[in-house]
Amino acid sequence: MYKYEHGGDIYTRSDRQVVDFSANINPLGIPQGVKQAIKSAVRDCVNYPDPFCRALGQATAKFLGVSQTYLYFGNGAADVLFRIALAERPKRALVLAPTFADYEKALHSVACAVEYYELKEAQDFKVEEDLLERITSQLDMVVICNPNNPTGQLTNVAFMEKVVLHCQKLGVRLLVDECFMDFVALDKRYSLRKMLGGHHQLVILKAFTKTFAIPGVRLGLCMTGDSKLLERLHEVGQDWNVSVIAQQAGIAAVQEMDYLHKSMAYVGEERAYLKQALTNLGAKVYGSEANYIFFYLKTPHNLPKLLEEKGILIRSCKNYHNLGEGYYRVAVKTKTMNRKLIKEIRLARENAIFTGTY
Amino acid sequence: MYKYEHGGDIYTRSDRQVVDFSANINPLGIPQGVKQAIKSAVRDCVNYPDPFCRALGQATAKFLGVSQTYLYFGNGAADVLFRIALAERPKRALVLAPTFADYEKALHSVACAVEYYELKEAQDFKVEEDLLERITSQLDMVVICNPNNPTGQLTNVAFMEKVVLHCQKLGVRLLVDECFMDFVALDKRYSLRKMLGGHHQLVILKAFTKTFAIPGVRLGLCMTGDSKLLERLHEVGQDWNVSVIAQQAGIAAVQEMDYLHKSMAYVGEERAYLKQALTNLGAKVYGSEANYIFFYLKTPHNLPKLLEEKGILIRSCKNYHNLGEGYYRVAVKTKTMNRKLIKEIRLARENAIFTGTY
Repeated sequence: MYKYEHGGDIYTRSDRQVVDFSANINPLGIPQGVKQAIKSAVRDCVNYPDPFCRALGQATAKFLGVSQTYLYFGNGAADVLFRIALAERPKRALVLAPTFADYEKALHSVACAVEYYELKEAQDFKVEEDLLERITSQLDMVVICNPNNPTGQLTNVAFMEKVVLHCQKLGVRLLVDECFMDFVALDKRYSLRKMLGGHHQLVILKAFTKTFAIPGVRLGLCMTGDSKLLERLHEVGQDWNVSVIAQQAGIAAVQEMDYLHKSMAYVGEERAYLKQALTNLGAKVYGSEANYIFFYLKTPHNLPKLLEEKGILIRSCKNYHNLGEGYYRVAVKTKTMNRKLIKEIRLARENAIFTGTY
Repeated sequence: MYKYEHGGDIYTRSDRQVVDFSANINPLGIPQGVKQAIKSAVRDCVNYPDPFCRALGQATAKFLGVSQTYLYFGNGAADVLFRIALAERPKRALVLAPTFADYEKALHSVACAVEYYELKEAQDFKVEEDLLERITSQLDMVVICNPNNPTGQLTNVAFMEKVVLHCQKLGVRLLVDECFMDFVALDKRYSLRKMLGGHHQLVILKAFTKTFAIPGVRLGLCMTGDSKLLERLHEVGQDWNVSVIAQQAGIAAVQEMDYLHKSMAYVGEERAYLKQALTNLGAKVYGSEANYIFFYLKTPHNLPKLLEEKGILIRSCKNYHNLGEGYYRVAVKTKTMNRKLIKEIRLARENAIFTGTY
């Protein structure tokens, strides 16, 4: 039986009254303008979607400040990811460990051998300079998630630029997943978008899902200056992978500048609260520059189960390559929810200490 | 540059006032219940969709009278098709010619060699008994669209059953696309669904798109008794390929029995009108058992262009393998639209005869 491994499965709960800290979604919820756009899009669903996402491409190019010709949209960033694997058919690839599991899943779907750059706990799971030595012309593809999921560690710009130049020189495809970059504090935030023009080995993955809180809509994209790859992306799958609704939702989303500014401020404040509160509880908090917190806490091993009984889902990270028991990832959610989370973790620990169960 | 080859590209027209006869969509439009379900689904888009489409599966299984365990849903039938190719990785496959172009596109995406069973004009492009001789153990997959697109020819049940048994015996995967079966007259309609249990080589493809007029939503499925294949389908792509909106739209759609009965009657009547009217214009009408008409008409070769100037898009079939100039496919649309189509074809021909341009 196929197993779902991304965290909380809210659909197995009959009450649905659960707060899902395992999904890293903007806590402000879906912007009003996007909700309205979805409702208005219903009448256009009688038509096939535009296979080239032209209106969406125009709006998004302006929003991101890149050429529209660099954009390829998909049914969520995950769809784009699998399609990149199929279009590229790499034989040997390097991924971080731990990182988002779907890179490996996508690479395996085309029988690619996957190697790991193991992030070290002693270095707080940060990417170090020795990554460059691991990138040789023997590789067909390197995948870097920045900030990384689940660690939230941001690899600095200067080093990322070195990686781009190195991959370009060797002819190695470099896939940088910037799905969580929108939540990084403005003074640190840095996308590699401006390098796309001169470096055709570079592909940047991005999602609407997390930034605009629409995981149920399915909309993501990649950007690259490699027109041959863009053509292959169209060839290896169906023409209509982005629904009419997703296209219109996306067009509305990129107009939501107020919402984005509010989100940045809100997530920044709540992230600081959670980091401090978890540290106070004895957790070691790593990186966590995005809209989620990655931490280690010596807890009862059934912490996720104990929290679930209280209506809270969190992501145990023990099934990530290079992690184990005690590592968790929680999304930054609303003020009330975040405080409830902290309270319930505290109670679970106190209870465990009291009963001697850990 | 990647080229879109499925017919009318409504998005290149600034006016959008075009009537698209190239898209074979239920002319009654989106059922009210489905429209409402999409609007209500907006609030749930803040969650990831159920990767197993459990509620949708339950409703659809009841609707189709098959076991829920046989169903796999995707982002439109086209998504399921490409995923089947990726899960199966056939080396050698047989398809009809002419038929829907995406079978070949999907097979090519996994570097499968494609052979053609060429349908003969002299046999009105019907599948004949000699198809069985072409299915040998050298093949990994056979794809049969029934009724076939673009011909609208329905292959009879007794023969299709023979094909199932033959493929089962040889261990050849048989993919039967029944996307247009819902529009076949009730007394002739026949799905192979009831054979799924005992014949695990059989996979049936089906869409919500055409039946419920929701191509912009993206929802399709396949059915098979082969649990190993179902598991592979989950493995070779993302977990969240069916949006929250598509799942809720689908659940609402399968309740629309009144709409379905009305659609059958309406399409039946208008199909008869179009067949007769086109025949009166001198066309040879083939098959056409579904919600579209396939015909040959000696016309000015720029007929699609002439009609487009009148705001009508039709599907020229000259780019199908085994077809050429003069073959067209038009959807059965509303009473008014169908009459306008006939009028404009008549005028275009008269004008061409008058000016001696063909």
